[in-house]
Amino acid sequence: MQAEIIAVGTEILLGQITNTNSTHIARGLAELGIDSYYQTVVGDNPQRLSAVIEIAAQRNDLVILTGGLGPTADDLTKQTLAHYLNVPLVEDAAAMQKITDWFAKNEQVMTANNRQQALYPQGAQPLVNHNGMAVGAFYQSSDSADFLLLPGPPRELAVMFDREAKPKLAAAYGDQAQIYSRVMRFYGITESALATKLQPLIDNQTAVTIAPYAKTNEVTLRLSAQAETESAAKAAIDQVDQQIKTLIGRYFYGYGDDNSLVNVVVKQLIDANLSITAAESLTAGLFQSTLGSVSGVSAVFPGGFVTYANEVKHQLVNVPQDIIDTDGVVSEATAKAMALGAQQQLQTDVAVSFTGVAGPDRLERQPAGTVWIGLAYRQQAPIAQQFHFAGGRQRIRQRSVMAGLDLLRHALAADSTLKK
Amino acid sequence: MQAEIIAVGTEILLGQITNTNSTHIARGLAELGIDSYYQTVVGDNPQRLSAVIEIAAQRNDLVILTGGLGPTADDLTKQTLAHYLNVPLVEDAAAMQKITDWFAKNEQVMTANNRQQALYPQGAQPLVNHNGMAVGAFYQSSDSADFLLLPGPPRELAVMFDREAKPKLAAAYGDQAQIYSRVMRFYGITESALATKLQPLIDNQTAVTIAPYAKTNEVTLRLSAQAETESAAKAAIDQVDQQIKTLIGRYFYGYGDDNSLVNVVVKQLIDANLSITAAESLTAGLFQSTLGSVSGVSAVFPGGFVTYANEVKHQLVNVPQDIIDTDGVVSEATAKAMALGAQQQLQTDVAVSFTGVAGPDRLERQPAGTVWIGLAYRQQAPIAQQFHFAGGRQRIRQRSVMAGLDLLRHALAADSTLKK
Repeated sequence: MQAEIIAVGTEILLGQITNTNSTHIARGLAELGIDSYYQTVVGDNPQRLSAVIEIAAQRNDLVILTGGLGPTADDLTKQTLAHYLNVPLVEDAAAMQKITDWFAKNEQVMTANNRQQALYPQGAQPLVNHNGMAVGAFYQSSDSADFLLLPGPPRELAVMFDREAKPKLAAAYGDQAQIYSRVMRFYGITESALATKLQPLIDNQTAVTIAPYAKTNEVTLRLSAQAETESAAKAAIDQVDQQIKTLIGRYFYGYGDDNSLVNVVVKQLIDANLSITAAESLTAGLFQSTLGSVSGVSAVFPGGFVTYANEVKHQLVNVPQDIIDTDGVVSEATAKAMALGAQQQLQTDVAVSFTGVAGPDRLERQPAGTVWIGLAYRQQAPIAQQFHFAGGRQRIRQRSVMAGLDLLRHALAADSTLKK
Repeated sequence: MQAEIIAVGTEILLGQITNTNSTHIARGLAELGIDSYYQTVVGDNPQRLSAVIEIAAQRNDLVILTGGLGPTADDLTKQTLAHYLNVPLVEDAAAMQKITDWFAKNEQVMTANNRQQALYPQGAQPLVNHNGMAVGAFYQSSDSADFLLLPGPPRELAVMFDREAKPKLAAAYGDQAQIYSRVMRFYGITESALATKLQPLIDNQTAVTIAPYAKTNEVTLRLSAQAETESAAKAAIDQVDQQIKTLIGRYFYGYGDDNSLVNVVVKQLIDANLSITAAESLTAGLFQSTLGSVSGVSAVFPGGFVTYANEVKHQLVNVPQDIIDTDGVVSEATAKAMALGAQQQLQTDVAVSFTGVAGPDRLERQPAGTVWIGLAYRQQAPIAQQFHFAGGRQRIRQRSVMAGLDLLRHALAADSTLKK
């Protein structure tokens, strides 16, 4: 089983937009176990589109077209495909109703070209568009390749592919085996170090596929297994999961595609009912803003401080002037004093502090990337840790935030008074 | 003149990475006036790569290959191309020297496969890699298409394409006319509204190309002109620039590809020597963190406040309890009080405040997206403005930050005491 993705859109050829639709579909095909050896991009031009459909149909069992299903004159994908298949376009009644309803509700005049969005090639199964009006289609053929027609706007594409198309592809092409997959997330280890440590495990695995992905500041592993039942697949994955944790469990922080380090840490704070604040110098609010990205954080996060200038470190979080004079602001003593002062000011259980050199210039003769992160955790004496981050100003600030979250995660893990 | 981009990499076909290299090259081709009607992706497989090279060479004058120039066994692009062209690979002495130097300096053993990175097809011009070791190549042929070989890692690709390849393409295929381009940036207008307002101008233009791009929360316009001399091109662009400003000058905030609204506002504050602080509720530090992204901001930004909880709004920036009780926290009065309180606490010239509903839940019976932004500007009475932003939690917070910056930009523009 082999599929090719054709993205249709002149904007992609002009470099005005990046072809993220093909990435989304490609990942879905990999999960379904459908091979994909080619991707193509072509403009809104019926001759050239016909030519690439011809080439793709010859070298594949399934051709997936995305883009060009809309109402305007340059949306020609389904007309071109219908012509290639030599079938007429027919109207999907439900989609047509949705279009007329929308125009009625919004008191707009419906121009004739909008009907076009409800059309699909005769003989295909129409696919519902949950985020738009243009209907998709899955066309199975006995004498040529099969075709899948999907819309171009990424929000429409993603939902239609995941919810409508994927189950139909699995039913049409899947063997009856269940595919089960799980994402494990790691912070503090590079992709190459992780791959090296797991290499013997990866090499000796046949039942479970272990695929590492490098993300910004973290690494994920996708474990996938195929088995006759979901519970058999799950059992195989559970076993590998445990072996991975034995090898690199220190860096593992959570499961799931949409998870993140801040998500895990904030959930732990909410579960333990521990409040948090921060005093930020070089990160200038980025740590607190990252906490703020998690819905529900207000239950444990009353607010905090951005303390860029030395006087403000003293005024807002009581860093003693003699510490600043003696140790400097990029120092263990300042990081500890900032964390303690913030904790005391807002009477929280936890406070994290950041002081360091975001760059590009040096500060106190220390190079960009030198960062002290402080942590005042409950009644414990404050601690601070020094880091040397590579990269430009934004990378250094983002890495500082991740390191602060990780410091807190380890303190929570070590806290024996918390229920786990 | 017609070119096709072929990205080589199994990771793209598996959806593990997005093909941003083709976007970068495509935009560069558009700027050079080279047409591009197709893009292809193929895996690290010599048979299939040969097949797509064959197809691309038939339908184009220039084929651009990116990826597969590295030292590992699956890096086969230049071997496959050399085989197609029937020429041997030869060694670039300068690139080889760089590789041996690196291994000597890092005290690593150089394995034989690393030599591969210094090879290029005989008869081509080698292209320097400023961010890596694999050399690129530009091969001009009298009897087939021309070929450009570029590396896969995006940092290596972008610099090699922009600095090494583009001038060679311009010299090889350009008419002798100078191409000059300028980027104008706009905030507060949608791409479609901008396109509608500029349509007559765009339709009547022949000398200058006007290309709008929708970016996150803003729109840019790229003006490009070709002329015999740079000053002639510049004069044509200047004229269109003025016409655009007459139509939508209110939304124009600055020039340049790497510019941003925060950059412009911070530079204006530094030039005017005006200090700034903020009190942030729903944005939770995102505004201050955005200020912190601009290098040099510490000259005017001493620090500020994240005031999530009601008590903290009172404790840190003196919002009177009766305002919170009477007007609520999502209110004009609270936004003004937060701005004024922050300004007074840190004795700054300017303070911006944010209070509203990031969602997903309602707050004080107001829906997600309801945001009040306050501004205390110098000795003026504080003002506040209400916004209704669409989107999820992060979009609402990001849009709030942009609106806050824009409010400040307009206050700075209206301040007649500042030198402009």
